[in-house]
Amino acid sequence: MNAGAPIEVPVNLPGQTCRVLVGPGLLARTGQLAREGGLHGRCAVITDENVGPLHAAGVLQSLEAAGFPAVLLPVPAGERSKCLAVAEDLCDRLIEAGLDRGSFVVALGGGVIGDLAGFVAAIYQRGIPLVQIPTTIVAQVDSSIGGKTGVNARAGKNLIGAFHQPRLVLADTDTLGTLPDREYREGFAEVIKHGAIRDAALLDELDPATPRENLAPLIARNMTIKAAIVAADEYEQSGQRALLNFGHTIAHAIENVAGYGRFLHGEAVSLGLAAALEISLRKYGLATAEADRLRAKLSAFGLPLTLPDDLTTDALLAAAGRDKKFSTGRIRYVVCPRLGAAFVAEDVSEDDLRAAIDSLRA
Amino acid sequence: MNAGAPIEVPVNLPGQTCRVLVGPGLLARTGQLAREGGLHGRCAVITDENVGPLHAAGVLQSLEAAGFPAVLLPVPAGERSKCLAVAEDLCDRLIEAGLDRGSFVVALGGGVIGDLAGFVAAIYQRGIPLVQIPTTIVAQVDSSIGGKTGVNARAGKNLIGAFHQPRLVLADTDTLGTLPDREYREGFAEVIKHGAIRDAALLDELDPATPRENLAPLIARNMTIKAAIVAADEYEQSGQRALLNFGHTIAHAIENVAGYGRFLHGEAVSLGLAAALEISLRKYGLATAEADRLRAKLSAFGLPLTLPDDLTTDALLAAAGRDKKFSTGRIRYVVCPRLGAAFVAEDVSEDDLRAAIDSLRA
Repeated sequence: MNAGAPIEVPVNLPGQTCRVLVGPGLLARTGQLAREGGLHGRCAVITDENVGPLHAAGVLQSLEAAGFPAVLLPVPAGERSKCLAVAEDLCDRLIEAGLDRGSFVVALGGGVIGDLAGFVAAIYQRGIPLVQIPTTIVAQVDSSIGGKTGVNARAGKNLIGAFHQPRLVLADTDTLGTLPDREYREGFAEVIKHGAIRDAALLDELDPATPRENLAPLIARNMTIKAAIVAADEYEQSGQRALLNFGHTIAHAIENVAGYGRFLHGEAVSLGLAAALEISLRKYGLATAEADRLRAKLSAFGLPLTLPDDLTTDALLAAAGRDKKFSTGRIRYVVCPRLGAAFVAEDVSEDDLRAAIDSLRA
Repeated sequence: MNAGAPIEVPVNLPGQTCRVLVGPGLLARTGQLAREGGLHGRCAVITDENVGPLHAAGVLQSLEAAGFPAVLLPVPAGERSKCLAVAEDLCDRLIEAGLDRGSFVVALGGGVIGDLAGFVAAIYQRGIPLVQIPTTIVAQVDSSIGGKTGVNARAGKNLIGAFHQPRLVLADTDTLGTLPDREYREGFAEVIKHGAIRDAALLDELDPATPRENLAPLIARNMTIKAAIVAADEYEQSGQRALLNFGHTIAHAIENVAGYGRFLHGEAVSLGLAAALEISLRKYGLATAEADRLRAKLSAFGLPLTLPDDLTTDALLAAAGRDKKFSTGRIRYVVCPRLGAAFVAEDVSEDDLRAAIDSLRA
C-alpha cells in the first residue's frame, strides 16, 4: 500500500454526491477532504468516550486547519447512547454550538455513533450534511455506507430512523489498529455475510491472520458490494436491499432478548447467519459443504455458532415477530440456496424459524 | 358548492404522488380515498384531545369500512405535545399497535398535530406513508402542504424535523365550523402572508364575514400558492421556499420569548408580518399605502399589530439570532418591496430588526 493513495469506492446514488475513501492517514486529511466536498461553515464531531481520546484530536485539528470551526461532542460508548434522548441532547448541543443549516456533522466512531450522529444530522433543522468516519470493521464495511441512520425504540432496535446519505465517508484503516480484539473480530460477521449474499470468492480471501494494516483492499471490496446493493434500492423498496438483512432477523431478536451489550452486533449476526444457513439447508437446497464452509469462516474469526440456553426459542420468536423485516403479517426472510446468491423468500414459516433457532443449541 | 365535488389542488413534486382535495364531507371518505391512493395495511390516527372527540369517530369508521385496521392515538392539545418525548411515545404506541413498514399514519388536527404526526411518520421505521387531515385554517392553507414535519427543540421552535411529503391531504371544510373564533381568525395570518408574497389580488377577496362553509375556493387558492412554491424548491435550497418565511423570523422569536401558548402562531405571525412590513417600508421601497392595506387586513381579522411591553426588544433579537433563518452569520430576511413580490434580502442588519421590533410598541 502507498500510504498517500487511498482507494476510492464508487457510489452511484441518483441526485446525490457521496465520496468514499479507504486507506491509511485519512483522519489527518478530514478538513481538506471536507473542503473538496463542498462543505462549509461550522461543524460538530460526534464521537464516543472510547474513540474520542484516540482519534478526535487529529480530526479536530484537521478541520480547524481547513477553516472549519469545530466542536467535539462526546457521548457515552455503547448501544445505550443510541436513543432519542441522546439524539435530542445532541441537537441541543448543536444549537448551543451555533450550528445552523449551513453546518455539518462528523460521525467519528463505530456503528452506534454512525447511526446516532447520522440521525442527528438527518433531523437537525430538517437535515444537514454528514461526514462518516467509521473506526470499526463493521462501520467501515457496512453501516457507514447506504444512508441508514437511526436510534433504538424502547421496544426494539432501529425502529426509529431516517435515510440520510453521507456526503463523505473516510474509512481510515489506521483506526483499526486500536480496536480491541473482540471488536475487531465481530466486524467480520458482516464481511462474511457479504460473501454469502453476493461474492462467494470473497470468503476464500478472509484470513484472521491478515495484518490489520493490509485490510484496505478488503474493506473497499466490501464497501463496493454494499454500495452496489444500496444504489439498486436506496429506500429498500425493490427487495434488493433486503438481501443485506441476511442473518439479521434472528440477530436482532437475540440482541433484543439478551439485552443490548451482552452480544456485540457481529456476534449476534454470526448466530443469525447460522440460523439462516440452517433454513437455507433444510428448505432451499443449500449444500451442506457450503454451509460448513461459511460456519467454519465464522468460527475462524472466533464468532459464536451456539446460543446460550437462557435465550429461549419462544422469546426469540416473539422478538423476531416484532422485527421490521416482517411485512404485513407474512414472514419475509433472506435465504441462500448457494453462496453468493441470496434471495428474499416469502414462504418461511414460524416453524422453520423455530427449527433454525433450536439448531443453534449446543 | 356542490358537496359531492371537492376541489383538487395540483401538487407537482418530482418522483412523488401527493393528492390534495378541498371541500366538505371529506372526513367520511378518508378510507375510500386512502384506498384510491394505494395505501394498505394498518393505520394509526394521531389527533389531539380537542379534535379527537369532534372528528375522530368519522375518520376511524371510514378507515375501518375501507378495510384498514385503525387505532386512535390522541395526545394532549397544544404546542407542548410537539416535542421529541411525545414523538417517541407515539412510536412506541405504533409498535404496540402492530404498525409495520407497510402501515400508514393519519394526522387529524391543526398544525401541531400535522407537524408531530408527520414527523412520527417520517422517522417510524425510517418513514411510512402519511395522510394529512388538517382541521384548522392554518393547517389547511399552509402546514399540511409541503412536507415539512418536526418538533420543537428545547432551545427553539421547529429545530428538529424532516421533509416527509404526505401521500394525501384532505382539507375538509366542514371541520372549520367547529373552530373557536380565535383559532379560526389566526389562520388568516398565513393567508394574508400568501397575498403579500405572491398574490396581491387575494387580499381583496379576504372578508372576515365570509361564511365558513364557503371557504373551499379560498383554501384551494392558498394551497395552490403554497404547493407551487414548494414544487420550485422542495428542500429549501434555491431560496424560493424561503419566501414563505415572510414575517416568521420575528414570529418565532415572539413565540420563543413569550413561551408557547401565549400567542397563537397566527397572532405571532401577524406581529412578524408587521415588523417585516416596517423593514420593507424603511429600506426596500414598499409604499405606505400598501403597508397600511396589509395591516388593515390583519386588523380586520382581529390579529394583533402591537407587541406587549414585557417582550423586550433585546430578548426578541437574541431569540431571532438563534432562529434557523440566519445562515452562516449573515442575516437573511424576507422583504416585500410591493405586495405580491417578496424576495430574500441579504443586507438586513440587526439595527433594522431592532427598529422594526420597536415600531410594534403601542
